[in-house]
Amino acid sequence: MRVLGIDPGLTRCGMGVVEGSVGRPLTLVDVNVLRTSSDLPVAERLVTIEKGVEAWIEEHRPDAVAVERVFARSDISTVIGTAQASGIAMVVAARRGLPVALHTPSEVKAAVTGNGRADKAQVGAMITRILRLERPPKPADAADALALAITHIWRGGAQSRIDAAVAAAGRRTR
Amino acid sequence: MRVLGIDPGLTRCGMGVVEGSVGRPLTLVDVNVLRTSSDLPVAERLVTIEKGVEAWIEEHRPDAVAVERVFARSDISTVIGTAQASGIAMVVAARRGLPVALHTPSEVKAAVTGNGRADKAQVGAMITRILRLERPPKPADAADALALAITHIWRGGAQSRIDAAVAAAGRRTR
Repeated sequence: MRVLGIDPGLTRCGMGVVEGSVGRPLTLVDVNVLRTSSDLPVAERLVTIEKGVEAWIEEHRPDAVAVERVFARSDISTVIGTAQASGIAMVVAARRGLPVALHTPSEVKAAVTGNGRADKAQVGAMITRILRLERPPKPADAADALALAITHIWRGGAQSRIDAAVAAAGRRTR
Repeated sequence: MRVLGIDPGLTRCGMGVVEGSVGRPLTLVDVNVLRTSSDLPVAERLVTIEKGVEAWIEEHRPDAVAVERVFARSDISTVIGTAQASGIAMVVAARRGLPVALHTPSEVKAAVTGNGRADKAQVGAMITRILRLERPPKPADAADALALAITHIWRGGAQSRIDAAVAAAGRRTR
Protein backbone atom coordinates (compact mmCIF):
# COMPACT_ATOMS: atom_id res chain seq x y z
CA MET A 1 0.00 0.00 0.00
CA ARG A 2 1.01 3.60 -0.59
CA VAL A 3 0.54 6.05 2.28
CA LEU A 4 0.78 9.83 2.41
CA GLY A 5 1.91 11.03 5.85
CA ILE A 6 1.19 14.65 6.75
CA ASP A 7 2.83 16.57 9.60
CA PRO A 8 0.47 19.57 9.62
CA GLY A 9 1.61 23.15 10.16
CA LEU A 10 0.83 26.61 8.86
CA THR A 11 4.47 27.66 8.34
CA ARG A 12 5.80 24.23 7.37
CA CYS A 13 3.60 21.29 6.43
CA GLY A 14 5.55 18.06 5.90
CA MET A 15 4.32 15.54 3.32
CA GLY A 16 5.91 12.12 2.80
CA VAL A 17 4.84 9.22 0.63
CA VAL A 18 5.94 5.69 1.51
CA GLU A 19 5.11 2.43 -0.23
CA GLY A 20 5.23 -1.09 1.15
CA SER A 21 3.52 -3.53 3.44
CA VAL A 22 4.04 -5.13 6.85
CA GLY A 23 7.06 -7.44 6.86
CA ARG A 24 8.44 -6.14 3.55
CA PRO A 25 11.04 -3.42 2.92
CA LEU A 26 9.46 0.03 2.67
CA THR A 27 10.30 2.53 -0.07
CA LEU A 28 10.41 6.31 -0.01
CA VAL A 29 8.33 7.58 -2.95
CA ASP A 30 8.62 11.34 -2.37
CA VAL A 31 8.92 13.88 0.41
CA ASN A 32 8.31 17.62 0.51
CA VAL A 33 7.64 20.50 2.88
CA LEU A 34 4.92 23.03 1.97
CA ARG A 35 5.78 26.48 3.30
CA THR A 36 3.54 29.52 3.65
CA SER A 37 4.64 33.01 4.66
CA SER A 38 3.46 34.42 7.98
CA ASP A 39 3.08 37.78 6.17
CA LEU A 40 -0.05 36.46 4.42
CA PRO A 41 -3.54 36.32 5.94
CA VAL A 42 -4.28 32.91 7.49
CA ALA A 43 -7.11 32.23 5.01
CA GLU A 44 -4.67 32.62 2.09
CA ARG A 45 -2.11 30.38 3.78
CA LEU A 46 -4.73 27.67 4.29
CA VAL A 47 -5.76 27.87 0.63
CA THR A 48 -2.09 27.34 -0.34
CA ILE A 49 -1.96 24.26 1.92
CA GLU A 50 -5.20 22.95 0.44
CA LYS A 51 -3.83 23.30 -3.10
CA GLY A 52 -0.49 21.73 -2.13
CA VAL A 53 -2.04 18.65 -0.49
CA GLU A 54 -4.52 18.33 -3.38
CA ALA A 55 -1.70 18.42 -5.97
CA TRP A 56 0.37 15.92 -3.97
CA ILE A 57 -2.53 13.42 -3.72
CA GLU A 58 -3.24 13.89 -7.42
CA GLU A 59 0.40 13.14 -8.26
CA HIS A 60 1.05 10.23 -5.90
CA ARG A 61 -2.38 8.57 -5.62
CA PRO A 62 -2.00 7.23 -2.06
CA ASP A 63 -4.30 4.50 -0.72
CA ALA A 64 -4.58 6.23 2.65
CA VAL A 65 -3.57 9.44 4.39
CA ALA A 66 -2.08 9.53 7.90
CA VAL A 67 -2.19 12.89 9.70
CA GLU A 68 -0.57 13.76 13.03
CA ARG A 69 -3.20 14.17 15.73
CA VAL A 70 -3.12 17.67 17.25
CA PHE A 71 -3.68 18.14 20.97
CA ALA A 72 -4.94 21.19 22.82
CA ARG A 73 -1.85 20.92 25.04
CA SER A 74 0.57 21.18 22.10
CA ASP A 75 2.79 24.28 21.66
CA ILE A 76 0.36 27.09 22.50
CA SER A 77 1.89 29.59 20.02
CA THR A 78 1.19 27.36 17.00
CA VAL A 79 -1.63 25.00 18.05
CA ILE A 80 -4.44 26.91 16.31
CA GLY A 81 -2.61 27.09 12.96
CA THR A 82 -1.53 23.46 13.28
CA ALA A 83 -5.13 22.38 13.98
CA GLN A 84 -6.39 24.42 11.01
CA ALA A 85 -3.77 22.92 8.67
CA SER A 86 -4.60 19.40 9.92
CA GLY A 87 -8.32 20.04 9.26
CA ILE A 88 -7.58 21.13 5.68
CA ALA A 89 -5.40 18.05 5.07
CA MET A 90 -8.14 15.76 6.43
CA VAL A 91 -10.86 17.38 4.29
CA VAL A 92 -8.82 17.19 1.09
CA ALA A 93 -8.30 13.45 1.63
CA ALA A 94 -11.78 12.60 2.96
CA ARG A 95 -13.72 14.37 0.22
CA ARG A 96 -11.90 12.15 -2.31
CA GLY A 97 -13.01 9.09 -0.34
CA LEU A 98 -9.51 8.30 0.95
CA PRO A 99 -9.29 6.74 4.43
CA VAL A 100 -7.85 9.24 6.91
CA ALA A 101 -6.06 8.01 10.05
CA LEU A 102 -4.72 10.05 12.94
CA HIS A 103 -1.63 8.97 14.87
CA THR A 104 -0.23 10.74 17.93
CA PRO A 105 3.43 11.81 18.09
CA SER A 106 4.13 9.15 20.73
CA GLU A 107 2.48 6.41 18.67
CA VAL A 108 4.71 7.42 15.77
CA LYS A 109 7.89 7.51 17.88
CA ALA A 110 7.01 4.15 19.43
CA ALA A 111 6.34 2.61 16.02
CA VAL A 112 9.60 3.68 14.38
CA THR A 113 12.03 3.58 17.34
CA GLY A 114 10.31 1.37 19.94
CA ASN A 115 10.33 4.33 22.36
CA GLY A 116 7.36 6.73 22.59
CA ARG A 117 9.65 9.44 23.96
CA ALA A 118 12.43 9.16 21.39
CA ASP A 119 14.09 12.43 20.32
CA LYS A 120 14.20 13.85 16.79
CA ALA A 121 17.70 12.52 16.08
CA GLN A 122 16.65 8.97 16.99
CA VAL A 123 13.52 9.21 14.80
CA GLY A 124 15.62 10.60 11.93
CA ALA A 125 18.18 7.78 12.30
CA MET A 126 15.48 5.10 12.22
CA ILE A 127 13.72 6.63 9.19
CA THR A 128 17.06 6.62 7.38
CA ARG A 129 17.56 2.94 8.19
CA ILE A 130 13.97 1.82 7.50
CA LEU A 131 13.81 3.58 4.12
CA ARG A 132 17.49 2.78 3.30
CA LEU A 133 18.34 6.45 2.69
CA GLU A 134 21.83 7.92 2.49
CA ARG A 135 21.14 10.55 5.15
CA PRO A 136 18.29 11.57 7.48
CA PRO A 137 15.52 13.54 5.71
CA LYS A 138 15.56 17.27 6.50
CA PRO A 139 13.87 19.35 7.87
CA ALA A 140 12.24 17.62 10.86
CA ASP A 141 8.78 18.12 9.32
CA ALA A 142 9.81 15.97 6.34
CA ALA A 143 11.12 13.22 8.65
CA ASP A 144 7.95 13.37 10.77
CA ALA A 145 5.71 13.05 7.70
CA LEU A 146 7.65 9.93 6.59
CA ALA A 147 7.46 8.53 10.14
CA LEU A 148 3.67 8.97 10.06
CA ALA A 149 3.42 7.08 6.76
CA ILE A 150 5.64 4.25 8.06
CA THR A 151 3.61 4.03 11.28
CA HIS A 152 0.43 3.80 9.29
CA ILE A 153 1.73 0.91 7.17
CA TRP A 154 3.10 -0.94 10.19
CA ARG A 155 0.00 -0.48 12.30
CA GLY A 156 -1.54 -2.40 9.47
CA GLY A 157 -4.22 -2.21 6.88
CA ALA A 158 -6.62 -3.56 9.54
CA GLN A 159 -7.12 -0.10 11.05
CA SER A 160 -7.57 1.44 7.59
CA ARG A 161 -10.23 -1.12 6.76
CA ILE A 162 -12.07 -0.36 10.01
CA ASP A 163 -11.91 3.39 9.33
CA ALA A 164 -13.14 2.90 5.76
CA ALA A 165 -16.05 0.74 6.98
CA VAL A 166 -17.00 3.34 9.61
CA ALA A 167 -16.79 6.11 7.00
CA ALA A 168 -18.91 4.09 4.56
CA ALA A 169 -21.48 3.33 7.28
CA GLY A 170 -21.59 7.06 8.05
CA ARG A 171 -22.27 7.87 4.40
CA ARG A 172 -25.06 5.26 4.20
CA THR A 173 -26.94 6.53 7.25
CA ARG A 174 -26.66 10.21 6.35
CA MET B 1 -23.16 44.92 1.90
CA ARG B 2 -24.11 41.36 2.70
CA VAL B 3 -22.01 39.52 5.28
CA LEU B 4 -21.91 35.87 6.29
CA GLY B 5 -20.93 35.46 9.94
CA ILE B 6 -19.61 32.07 11.02
CA ASP B 7 -19.31 30.87 14.62
CA PRO B 8 -17.13 27.80 13.97
CA GLY B 9 -17.57 24.49 15.75
CA LEU B 10 -17.40 20.79 14.97
CA THR B 11 -20.67 19.87 16.73
CA ARG B 12 -22.54 23.10 15.97
CA CYS B 13 -21.39 25.65 13.40
CA GLY B 14 -23.51 28.83 13.39
CA MET B 15 -24.03 30.68 10.09
CA GLY B 16 -25.87 34.01 9.86
CA VAL B 17 -26.31 36.34 6.90
CA VAL B 18 -26.99 40.04 7.52
CA GLU B 19 -27.44 42.81 4.97
CA GLY B 20 -27.01 46.54 5.45
CA SER B 21 -24.49 49.30 5.92
CA VAL B 22 -23.14 51.56 8.67
CA GLY B 23 -25.84 54.00 9.85
CA ARG B 24 -28.70 52.15 8.14
CA PRO B 25 -31.05 49.52 9.59
CA LEU B 26 -29.64 46.00 9.23
CA THR B 27 -31.68 43.06 7.95
CA LEU B 28 -31.51 39.38 8.82
CA VAL B 29 -31.27 37.41 5.57
CA ASP B 30 -30.98 33.88 6.95
CA VAL B 31 -29.59 31.99 9.89
CA ASN B 32 -28.78 28.32 10.41
CA VAL B 33 -26.75 25.94 12.55
CA LEU B 34 -24.82 23.13 10.85
CA ARG B 35 -24.60 20.07 13.08
CA THR B 36 -22.34 17.04 12.78
CA SER B 37 -22.48 13.90 14.90
CA SER B 38 -19.61 13.12 17.27
CA ASP B 39 -20.07 9.46 16.25
CA LEU B 40 -18.49 10.20 12.87
CA PRO B 41 -14.74 10.45 12.17
CA VAL B 42 -13.48 14.06 12.35
CA ALA B 43 -12.52 14.05 8.66
CA GLU B 44 -16.12 13.22 7.68
CA ARG B 45 -17.48 15.91 9.99
CA LEU B 46 -15.17 18.50 8.43
CA VAL B 47 -16.29 17.49 4.94
CA THR B 48 -19.93 18.04 6.03
CA ILE B 49 -19.00 21.51 7.31
CA GLU B 50 -17.16 22.29 4.08
CA LYS B 51 -20.22 21.31 2.02
CA GLY B 52 -22.59 23.25 4.30
CA VAL B 53 -20.59 26.49 4.17
CA GLU B 54 -20.09 26.06 0.42
CA ALA B 55 -23.85 25.63 -0.15
CA TRP B 56 -24.65 28.60 2.09
CA ILE B 57 -22.25 30.91 0.22
CA GLU B 58 -23.63 29.65 -3.08
CA GLU B 59 -27.18 30.43 -1.94
CA HIS B 60 -26.63 33.80 -0.26
CA ARG B 61 -23.71 35.26 -2.23
CA PRO B 62 -22.18 37.33 0.61
CA ASP B 63 -19.69 40.15 -0.11
CA ALA B 64 -17.52 39.12 2.84
CA VAL B 65 -17.21 36.39 5.45
CA ALA B 66 -16.56 37.11 9.14
CA VAL B 67 -15.26 34.19 11.22
CA GLU B 68 -14.77 34.12 14.99
CA ARG B 69 -11.07 34.12 15.86
CA VAL B 70 -10.10 31.01 17.85
CA PHE B 71 -7.58 31.27 20.67
CA ALA B 72 -5.33 28.59 22.10
CA ARG B 73 -6.74 29.50 25.52
CA SER B 74 -10.34 28.77 24.50
CA ASP B 75 -12.23 25.79 25.98
CA ILE B 76 -9.57 23.07 25.93
CA SER B 77 -12.06 20.22 25.25
CA THR B 78 -13.26 21.75 21.96
CA VAL B 79 -10.47 24.09 20.81
CA ILE B 80 -8.94 21.71 18.24
CA GLY B 81 -12.28 20.96 16.55
CA THR B 82 -13.23 24.65 16.64
CA ALA B 83 -9.90 25.63 15.05
CA GLN B 84 -10.32 22.95 12.36
CA ALA B 85 -13.89 24.09 11.57
CA SER B 86 -12.74 27.74 11.41
CA GLY B 87 -9.95 26.76 9.00
CA ILE B 88 -12.44 25.01 6.70
CA ALA B 89 -14.78 28.03 6.75
CA MET B 90 -11.88 30.37 5.90
CA VAL B 91 -10.67 28.19 3.03
CA VAL B 92 -14.14 27.84 1.48
CA ALA B 93 -14.50 31.65 1.45
CA ALA B 94 -10.93 32.53 0.46
CA ARG B 95 -10.67 30.12 -2.46
CA ARG B 96 -13.70 31.89 -3.98
CA GLY B 97 -11.89 35.21 -3.60
CA LEU B 98 -14.19 36.44 -0.80
CA PRO B 99 -12.57 38.70 1.83
CA VAL B 100 -12.28 36.85 5.14
CA ALA B 101 -12.14 38.79 8.41
CA LEU B 102 -11.56 37.47 11.92
CA HIS B 103 -13.17 39.10 14.96
CA THR B 104 -12.57 38.08 18.56
CA PRO B 105 -15.48 37.27 20.89
CA SER B 106 -14.82 40.44 22.89
CA GLU B 107 -14.72 42.62 19.77
CA VAL B 108 -18.10 41.17 18.82
CA LYS B 109 -19.61 41.70 22.27
CA ALA B 110 -18.26 45.25 22.40
CA ALA B 111 -19.63 46.02 18.93
CA VAL B 112 -23.18 44.82 19.58
CA THR B 113 -23.61 45.64 23.30
CA GLY B 114 -20.93 48.26 24.05
CA ASN B 115 -19.44 45.85 26.61
CA GLY B 116 -16.67 43.40 25.67
CA ARG B 117 -17.67 41.15 28.57
CA ALA B 118 -21.42 41.05 27.95
CA ASP B 119 -23.16 37.73 28.63
CA LYS B 120 -25.08 35.61 26.09
CA ALA B 121 -28.49 36.99 27.14
CA GLN B 122 -27.33 40.57 26.59
CA VAL B 123 -25.88 39.72 23.16
CA GLY B 124 -29.14 37.92 22.26
CA ALA B 125 -31.24 40.89 23.36
CA MET B 126 -29.20 43.34 21.30
CA ILE B 127 -29.26 41.13 18.17
CA THR B 128 -33.05 40.98 18.53
CA ARG B 129 -33.25 44.78 18.70
CA ILE B 130 -30.69 45.50 15.96
CA LEU B 131 -32.30 43.10 13.48
CA ARG B 132 -35.87 43.91 14.65
CA LEU B 133 -36.68 40.24 15.37
CA GLU B 134 -39.63 38.98 17.42
CA ARG B 135 -37.43 36.90 19.72
CA PRO B 136 -33.71 36.22 20.27
CA PRO B 137 -32.24 33.78 17.73
CA LYS B 138 -31.61 30.28 19.16
CA PRO B 139 -29.32 28.44 19.76
CA ALA B 140 -26.44 30.66 20.96
CA ASP B 141 -24.35 29.63 17.93
CA ALA B 142 -26.97 31.21 15.62
CA ALA B 143 -26.98 34.45 17.66
CA ASP B 144 -23.16 34.53 17.70
CA ALA B 145 -22.99 34.10 13.93
CA LEU B 146 -25.39 37.03 13.43
CA ALA B 147 -23.41 39.11 15.95
CA LEU B 148 -20.24 38.44 13.92
CA ALA B 149 -21.94 39.60 10.71
CA ILE B 150 -23.26 42.76 12.41
CA THR B 151 -19.83 43.49 13.89
CA HIS B 152 -18.25 43.15 10.49
CA ILE B 153 -20.67 45.60 8.87
CA TRP B 154 -20.28 48.10 11.71
CA ARG B 155 -16.49 47.88 11.83
CA GLY B 156 -16.86 49.08 8.29
CA GLY B 157 -15.98 48.20 4.76
CA ALA B 158 -12.63 49.95 5.38
CA GLN B 159 -11.17 46.88 7.08
CA SER B 160 -12.51 44.62 4.31
CA ARG B 161 -10.88 46.80 1.70
CA ILE B 162 -7.56 46.65 3.56
CA ASP B 163 -7.80 42.86 3.82
CA ALA B 164 -8.66 42.55 0.13
CA ALA B 165 -5.71 44.76 -0.83
CA VAL B 166 -3.34 42.72 1.36
CA ALA B 167 -4.68 39.49 -0.15
CA ALA B 168 -4.31 40.85 -3.68
CA ALA B 169 -0.74 42.02 -2.94
CA GLY B 170 0.01 38.54 -1.60
CA ARG B 171 -1.29 36.96 -4.80
CA ARG B 172 0.83 39.29 -6.96
CA THR B 173 4.07 38.58 -5.16
CA ARG B 174 3.63 34.83 -5.01
